[in-house]
Parts: sequence; C-alpha cells; structure tokens
Amino acid sequence: MRAANSWTALFQFQDLNFMSFSLHPRLDADTFLLGDLPLCRALLMNDSRFPWLVLVPRRADIREIHQLPETDQFQLLREITQVSAAMETAFSAEKMNVAALGNMVPQLHIHIIARFEADEAWPGPIWGVGQTIPYADETDPAVMRFKTLMSNVGGQ
Amino acid sequence: MRAANSWTALFQFQDLNFMSFSLHPRLDADTFLLGDLPLCRALLMNDSRFPWLVLVPRRADIREIHQLPETDQFQLLREITQVSAAMETAFSAEKMNVAALGNMVPQLHIHIIARFEADEAWPGPIWGVGQTIPYADETDPAVMRFKTLMSNVGGQ
Repeated sequence: MRAANSWTALFQFQDLNFMSFSLHPRLDADTFLLGDLPLCRALLMNDSRFPWLVLVPRRADIREIHQLPETDQFQLLREITQVSAAMETAFSAEKMNVAALGNMVPQLHIHIIARFEADEAWPGPIWGVGQTIPYADETDPAVMRFKTLMSNVGGQ
Repeated sequence: MRAANSWTALFQFQDLNFMSFSLHPRLDADTFLLGDLPLCRALLMNDSRFPWLVLVPRRADIREIHQLPETDQFQLLREITQVSAAMETAFSAEKMNVAALGNMVPQLHIHIIARFEADEAWPGPIWGVGQTIPYADETDPAVMRFKTLMSNVGGQ
C-alpha cells in the first residue's frame, strides 16, 4: 500500500502545472531569453525594429488570462505593469502596447511593446507589419540593454 | 476663512480623478454603451464582424495601466477576466484577444474580442482589417445580446 501511495503522490506532483511548463517552440525560436520573473519567463522578440518583450507565465496548458488561478492573475498583472513602466522610462516611449492575442501560438503570452510616432507601424499595431530585422545575436549591445533592464525589474 | 476653506475643499473634490472622467469622443462615436462595471464603462464596438467589447476605466487622464493606483489595476483585471470569460462562453470563442493599445485614442481602453478561425482577420489581429460593418442600431438584437451578457457580469 505504501508503494502504491508513493506512486500516486508522485504522479499528482508531476501533474501540477508548474512542473510541466515548457516554452512553446515558436516562442523559443523567435526570441532571446532575458530571465525569469516570479511567474513569467521574460523574452525579447528578435525584431530590432521595436522594443518588444513577451512575458510567458510558467504554467502549463493555459491559453487565456482568466484560466490562471487568481493569485497568478494578480502576479501576472504586477509583472506586466513593472515591465511596462520600466520600458516606458528606459525608451522614453510615447505609448506602451500590452496585448494577449495568441491566435497563432496557443500558449498564453503577453506582448509588451514600446511605441513611437516614428516607428514603422505607427499608429497601427505592429503584428504582421513589414519585415523582421533580427538583432546580430544575443551579445548584441541592444539585446544586452534589455537584459540589464530586466535585471532591474523585481524578482530576478 | 470658513468660506475660503469650503472653496478649497470643493476644488479638491472636483479635482479627484473619478469626478472628471468623460469618455473620449472617438470612443463615444464608435461604440454603443452597454453599462458601467464598478470601475469600467463597458462599450460595444460598432462593428458587427467581431464580438468586440471595450472597457474604459472611469478615471481621468490615464493612458497606461501602470498609471492606475494598484487597487484600480486589480479591479481592472477582475473586470477584464469576467468579461473575457463571459464572452468566451457566450460565443464559444476559439480565442480571446485582450489588448491595451491606444496609439490613436489616448484614453486608456482595453479591447476584448472573441476570435474565430472563420473570422475575417484570423489569425492576425483585427485592427485596421477590411471595412467596418455597423449594427443596424442600438435596438439590433445582436446589440441587445451584448447588453444581456453584460447584465450577467457582476456589478451592474
């Protein structure tokens, strides 16, 4: 009986959402890893035309914000506002865009983008506009700037 | 002195954000009023191609979520998730899109849109796609359906 119970406990433990999170391959391919906040993995979209971060709650099988437990929802909001405020200041953004779309990638992820009247897509949204211009690589000074910015946001 | 203090008090009262909220004329022109939640005015975008609601916190001079006091941020999140979950169920949506963009209208407003693989813009975002198809008027049964839906979301 003891062995059976242990197996049951192990199975339940592994079934918890935080145990089985893995980043969607499409997000992994399109971004640089900046670090982990208490809830979210912070990623830099590999498109140097826009200061464009993506936050992914490290929870499995979540597509919508309202599917998260309430405590996670509040933590997500804290991380969104911390990152958004930090980017607004760092880039002197004219407007921040915050969006959970996910029509193409089913894993919940939140775009946080600093916008400028002079940017390529203004005043429209940025998705699907023009051609991506990748950073040189993850040692690109522009990428390093985002790593520094994220290290100054709480929870690193 | 008493009169002067009264005037000061009155001025301060009128200066509070919730006293001076007024809906941006562009949002007013493009939507039907559905009702007020505890924090937000709920609006239906007048484009029958998409189930598309807009929530506007009734606070003056706010452009970004992170500019709201924390209690308002949490209430905004509650209202977003309540409306988003209600729309997902009511329309059997394949995906909900939630976004604060505001590049054109500087008053903070959150788009909540039920998306379908068969809709005109899928899998891209809906903004700026094709031509708007307005509802007949505010007595259109489709508009009334949204009013009923919103009356079932808390706080009416």
